[in-house]
Amino acid sequence: MSDKIVLAYSGGLDTSIILTWLKEKYSAEIIAVCCDAGQDDDFAAVEAKAYKTGASKSYVIDMREEFVTDYIWPTLKAGAIYENDYLLGTSMARPLMAKKLVEIAWKEGATYIAHGCTGKGNDQVRFESTIRALDPELKIIAPWRIWDFKSREDLIDYAAAHDIPIDQTKAKIYSRDQNLWHISHEGGNLEDTWAEHLDDLHVMSVPIEKAPDKPVFVEIDFEAGIPVAIDGEKLGPVELLEKLNKLGGENGVGTIDIVENRLVGMKSRGVYETPGGTILMKAHYALEKLIHDRETIAFKNLVAQKYAQMVYDGQWFTPLHEALDAFVDITSKNVTGTVRMELYKGNALPTATKSDYSLFNVEFATFGADEVYNQKDAEGFINLFSLPMKIRAIQESKQKQQVKNYETLDGKIYKRD
Amino acid sequence: MSDKIVLAYSGGLDTSIILTWLKEKYSAEIIAVCCDAGQDDDFAAVEAKAYKTGASKSYVIDMREEFVTDYIWPTLKAGAIYENDYLLGTSMARPLMAKKLVEIAWKEGATYIAHGCTGKGNDQVRFESTIRALDPELKIIAPWRIWDFKSREDLIDYAAAHDIPIDQTKAKIYSRDQNLWHISHEGGNLEDTWAEHLDDLHVMSVPIEKAPDKPVFVEIDFEAGIPVAIDGEKLGPVELLEKLNKLGGENGVGTIDIVENRLVGMKSRGVYETPGGTILMKAHYALEKLIHDRETIAFKNLVAQKYAQMVYDGQWFTPLHEALDAFVDITSKNVTGTVRMELYKGNALPTATKSDYSLFNVEFATFGADEVYNQKDAEGFINLFSLPMKIRAIQESKQKQQVKNYETLDGKIYKRD
Amino acid sequence: MSDKIVLAYSGGLDTSIILTWLKEKYSAEIIAVCCDAGQDDDFAAVEAKAYKTGASKSYVIDMREEFVTDYIWPTLKAGAIYENDYLLGTSMARPLMAKKLVEIAWKEGATYIAHGCTGKGNDQVRFESTIRALDPELKIIAPWRIWDFKSREDLIDYAAAHDIPIDQTKAKIYSRDQNLWHISHEGGNLEDTWAEHLDDLHVMSVPIEKAPDKPVFVEIDFEAGIPVAIDGEKLGPVELLEKLNKLGGENGVGTIDIVENRLVGMKSRGVYETPGGTILMKAHYALEKLIHDRETIAFKNLVAQKYAQMVYDGQWFTPLHEALDAFVDITSKNVTGTVRMELYKGNALPTATKSDYSLFNVEFATFGADEVYNQKDAEGFINLFSLPMKIRAIQESKQKQQVKNYETLDGKIYKRD
Amino acid sequence: MSDKIVLAYSGGLDTSIILTWLKEKYSAEIIAVCCDAGQDDDFAAVEAKAYKTGASKSYVIDMREEFVTDYIWPTLKAGAIYENDYLLGTSMARPLMAKKLVEIAWKEGATYIAHGCTGKGNDQVRFESTIRALDPELKIIAPWRIWDFKSREDLIDYAAAHDIPIDQTKAKIYSRDQNLWHISHEGGNLEDTWAEHLDDLHVMSVPIEKAPDKPVFVEIDFEAGIPVAIDGEKLGPVELLEKLNKLGGENGVGTIDIVENRLVGMKSRGVYETPGGTILMKAHYALEKLIHDRETIAFKNLVAQKYAQMVYDGQWFTPLHEALDAFVDITSKNVTGTVRMELYKGNALPTATKSDYSLFNVEFATFGADEVYNQKDAEGFINLFSLPMKIRAIQESKQKQQVKNYETLDGKIYKRD
Repeated sequence: MSDKIVLAYSGGLDTSIILTWLKEKYSAEIIAVCCDAGQDDDFAAVEAKAYKTGASKSYVIDMREEFVTDYIWPTLKAGAIYENDYLLGTSMARPLMAKKLVEIAWKEGATYIAHGCTGKGNDQVRFESTIRALDPELKIIAPWRIWDFKSREDLIDYAAAHDIPIDQTKAKIYSRDQNLWHISHEGGNLEDTWAEHLDDLHVMSVPIEKAPDKPVFVEIDFEAGIPVAIDGEKLGPVELLEKLNKLGGENGVGTIDIVENRLVGMKSRGVYETPGGTILMKAHYALEKLIHDRETIAFKNLVAQKYAQMVYDGQWFTPLHEALDAFVDITSKNVTGTVRMELYKGNALPTATKSDYSLFNVEFATFGADEVYNQKDAEGFINLFSLPMKIRAIQESKQKQQVKNYETLDGKIYKRD
Repeated sequence: MSDKIVLAYSGGLDTSIILTWLKEKYSAEIIAVCCDAGQDDDFAAVEAKAYKTGASKSYVIDMREEFVTDYIWPTLKAGAIYENDYLLGTSMARPLMAKKLVEIAWKEGATYIAHGCTGKGNDQVRFESTIRALDPELKIIAPWRIWDFKSREDLIDYAAAHDIPIDQTKAKIYSRDQNLWHISHEGGNLEDTWAEHLDDLHVMSVPIEKAPDKPVFVEIDFEAGIPVAIDGEKLGPVELLEKLNKLGGENGVGTIDIVENRLVGMKSRGVYETPGGTILMKAHYALEKLIHDRETIAFKNLVAQKYAQMVYDGQWFTPLHEALDAFVDITSKNVTGTVRMELYKGNALPTATKSDYSLFNVEFATFGADEVYNQKDAEGFINLFSLPMKIRAIQESKQKQQVKNYETLDGKIYKRD
Repeated sequence: MSDKIVLAYSGGLDTSIILTWLKEKYSAEIIAVCCDAGQDDDFAAVEAKAYKTGASKSYVIDMREEFVTDYIWPTLKAGAIYENDYLLGTSMARPLMAKKLVEIAWKEGATYIAHGCTGKGNDQVRFESTIRALDPELKIIAPWRIWDFKSREDLIDYAAAHDIPIDQTKAKIYSRDQNLWHISHEGGNLEDTWAEHLDDLHVMSVPIEKAPDKPVFVEIDFEAGIPVAIDGEKLGPVELLEKLNKLGGENGVGTIDIVENRLVGMKSRGVYETPGGTILMKAHYALEKLIHDRETIAFKNLVAQKYAQMVYDGQWFTPLHEALDAFVDITSKNVTGTVRMELYKGNALPTATKSDYSLFNVEFATFGADEVYNQKDAEGFINLFSLPMKIRAIQESKQKQQVKNYETLDGKIYKRD
Repeated sequence: MSDKIVLAYSGGLDTSIILTWLKEKYSAEIIAVCCDAGQDDDFAAVEAKAYKTGASKSYVIDMREEFVTDYIWPTLKAGAIYENDYLLGTSMARPLMAKKLVEIAWKEGATYIAHGCTGKGNDQVRFESTIRALDPELKIIAPWRIWDFKSREDLIDYAAAHDIPIDQTKAKIYSRDQNLWHISHEGGNLEDTWAEHLDDLHVMSVPIEKAPDKPVFVEIDFEAGIPVAIDGEKLGPVELLEKLNKLGGENGVGTIDIVENRLVGMKSRGVYETPGGTILMKAHYALEKLIHDRETIAFKNLVAQKYAQMVYDGQWFTPLHEALDAFVDITSKNVTGTVRMELYKGNALPTATKSDYSLFNVEFATFGADEVYNQKDAEGFINLFSLPMKIRAIQESKQKQQVKNYETLDGKIYKRD
């Protein structure tokens, strides 16, 4: 029996070439696996193409609900944003895709998993870390790190020589990755940080200047940190996100154009459209501000930053990630309430919030104002809060062991007696 | 000689009442000090009113340049944002105002400083912490924590009884604080978190829906983390900020409507307009992303959060704040370059960045691509980076001490031989 | 019916005075509650004394097992150490004691809780925060912040005048607090930081110089982060800790003499004896080092510091503390194994560790060495890990735009061509 | 002209083999560089051996003072301890050694630097990161990652075949690295974490059981965080550290036996003797506790952890490390004072501290006690500090919207009316 290779397959130029190349080089059966994470694709056509290109078997896996429920919602609850900007759309999808590949490998008895990530990006790390974490005996093939092709042109030549069907008639401008949460764009004129990205880049949303002239208002209900309804209508996770993508996209919400630090040591520039996700992150945080105390907000920010770094780095299946999730689950228990969002020409603004767990002004409901907060308490609070500063000032004035001379407003020196 | 009290005086209802009340209660000379931090006020009228209300002496101190240079710029360089939202406009001004009060007290030989902060807010802490840090022997009077007045109506009655000139003919809707960096709004219908703030609240900026239909582009030059020019024109700190306030305000940039956790243990809701500051914070961070490596960005975020908390809490004159500043000064050394910003109906978006210190793609300038980054290195990187996950997976499979059974996609169990 | 006051009662001078003083001042029934947290006391005598001093009712609550299981073990698992030194013995006991007081108040229908903490320490904050968190309607009486007694002498006079039995014939040297985990000592000559504490201070342990001349070795088994057996013998939580206290105490283990920052803004100096706790903390951490990966160790250290601060500050019954606990519970799942400790004249040293979950060298058991770790991978790892430094160096040399001149060992300048 | 290779040379088996192997393989001139960091070695003999083994040139560089002043003292001031245990002795030396190699390469016009680090450890990362940061054009040769030798035996065979003088007659038990700060031991029976390290491992210190029966007391003066005198005698950095190494070593101070997480993804076990360094770290921290306020201690702990990780990872010549140093320099300004240490059978205990910058009880010197700290202030402090807990409790009881039922001590339910 020949070896079996499970290939992460999208039907695009790269993975089509890889399919043929793997089959030839390893004399192996190729099992093409295409994961539907919500990208805009014709999966029947992708499957057909896989067989036509030489796959012995092909899977199309609808992982949309699992993606939203088990990957996006936890990251949303964590408030995880990489380097304060990036909402982790691609990062979250990779561990789930890799998990599907591993499961297919187990099912098919395959010993290899192959992927089409280049050697310069983060995705190779995310795929391979996940595969290692789930089954360290599986072997990994990363053609882009092995073969001698250097460019898209090399691939097109190879495709022509091997009768691989491609629709790559003109230069592909951007390198893209899409799923239910976002679409990313890299390459093209983005390589010049002093150049602006062009309007024709947009896929999931309109440019802000082309959005409607009237704002749209939408109310989002959260239960335990998870969005469950829009304008009072209960929706499943996929439907809810699709609806917000549509609303956000129409109003130009959620496009960022950033330089980021990749895990592999270099910077890259990317444009990300995350219309629904941007609305959700802002709404979720506005609700948390109504509910969490100061210490919780502050420490949860540290957790969020670490969470984001771990997701970005592909460390989903790790004990630390699991522990961070446990932390977030507890803080999310009371994050139940409603946020009204205004969507208008790129803006997604929380305009009103309510929650049964609100800590805002709850005091006046049952207690006399002075019972809950007595202004006179402030004096004692300040006296103790500022005590270290006061003690230091006393210590410093002792240090000087001299009449104090102060330099003041007009530059003159005034002595204290 | 009678005691002297230095009073932080604005000319508004509260401090006018306080001036009279202090004079009566303490039989003291009142020295009224009004700090010009860039708020929109008639300072000659304020001074005249101070004398008319009974002050023995009055100072108007133009602290705008010092405010921008020594308080705003360091906070901007730090990237300090309180609870991810608030740009600290009021917080930064308080320690400088308190420092001026202390200096006047030294100059005048006063033993008391009085302020008009209520007992429920953060400002009392900021004022008093600063005074303690600078001169622990000065005594502090906070009338709102002492007297029996409970409401604005009480004050108006007192004013009438004491012939204090006031222009408080109708109910003041919002409690406001303005300076060069921002204006804050509290009270009014903001007390209901489910109510939206109204358009007539705006002072420094227009509502986003009323901004022009065409975007404005502006280029900001930074040197060592500090903005120095707009569209190539060198400007002093005050002028630069005023210009950006105008541009930002016209385009509806920088209004946030948030719930925040006060230091004194309660939540409050505020609307903040920070038009120029918002542009600067976003531009500055975009430039940092071009220049700082990943570890620096990540740790500087922790520093920024702490910095923000310390400024918010009035801990400006502390050793820790000084140490954070030293950290930030070093990271800022190379933050020199230019950011192009698009301003459009509430959006302030970095669209392009450049810097001689950019770490983006610099490699291709002098080295062959493969000399700087060889894709084959990625394999080794990933192997070691994911090693802990792999070792754990091996350890766990040993733990099971059994043929592995895997639950896979279709719920069936597949054995590995 | 008169009011009822629940009093935290120890039988010592202070709370005996307080009992009488409360009864007199408030014309209330006093319910004396003595919590047995493992301190060395005659609880029957304490109870008798309570009645004799005027209590209408007296409780002695054995909370030792709950204390160890629900307060000490979680803190041990967290690795929480305040300011890197203090093992939180008193801090952990306070929320449990306060919870017991609240429960008695509910049971007895009391509206007041009184405690004997002074106004200068942390304990008042811990007691009162807990009471507020559990029942904000209960009223709190803190006599030390109310009455006019200033000194121990004042109390003794009052006791004499009121026929309160005291055994305070000579000056009490130290202020102490003991429970199963530790005993603290404050006051006396400790007020002078340049003075050494004296040998006669020791209660739970011998001075290191007086410990035996031969080391003792002890093996501790942990399950999911919790100690369960000593030298192979399974023990309940209280017995286990008592046994380690005895072993540690005999060998002079666990005494620290430190200056610490109190929550209330001042520094204090304390000596703490924590014989068994010190052994456990060190053993637990040694086991974690065998099991956790680098990222987990690093982030758990941040959690531990926050955890310690929250326990120190009396914030036990808060959402953030609960969330930290959830984090720790997950990281603790695999902390199962055995640690051999050497106890010798103040030293408590982990000398050997083992665990089925060890990540140490597990690779060689099932994989060929090169399959798990290939030295050649290191090159790729280093190339990418150091890439930001390399890019910066290239960028800097470009910056100079000149032949490099280097200042070297002998101070001369060498040109590179 | 042939290429020149600068080799980090110690005179031991490995680097002797490497010298010959490099010369043969690269037909290059070998410049042997031996760095004196305070290890116990005959440097004249090392130099002679270098020439005898084929070096065209040999340097012995006394870098001891620079090592202590520019590498050890900053790390001491930072309080940097890797994973709470390891005092970074080897880590700190590597960047300085690498810097010396680079400087020699510049001086000699060499294009290569070679080192003898294996492919499994941290040192290769530290060396190569530093070289890249200082001169990215230099090429690096790491023979252990290139050649086919697998074991010590292979090397001994090679040495015999090439007439390389070695004194490796019997099996070398431990892999060691020594300098002024410490000596590390790896390998041998340490590979079994359940085995104890043996007494004959000790080099710089005696086993604790063999230390004298009487304690030694020593007073250390610090100025701005740096130790400057012992028992009142001013000493240069090298002399001071040597003296403390002697005192500490005689008293068995500073041996740790730990498992640590290497940067390259695996765990290792090491024994480290750091006699003087351990005394200094403990004394320094005790002094900081007397001087720093709570916020400073807490945040400096975060800085210390990051600092330690960066030093461990070889990221000395980075902007972030420089920024951390700037932070530490500011906090260290006032760390001036004296610490008395007791050294006794492995213990190094601070027993007394004093400083003109002490914040301990300074208040009573100039102010009446109540002026500085009024116990009545505590009530206000606690009321505001615990306010979030109180508000939450009120909110929760509202949530229940029912008569409260409480489960109490005896398991019964008591209703509140």
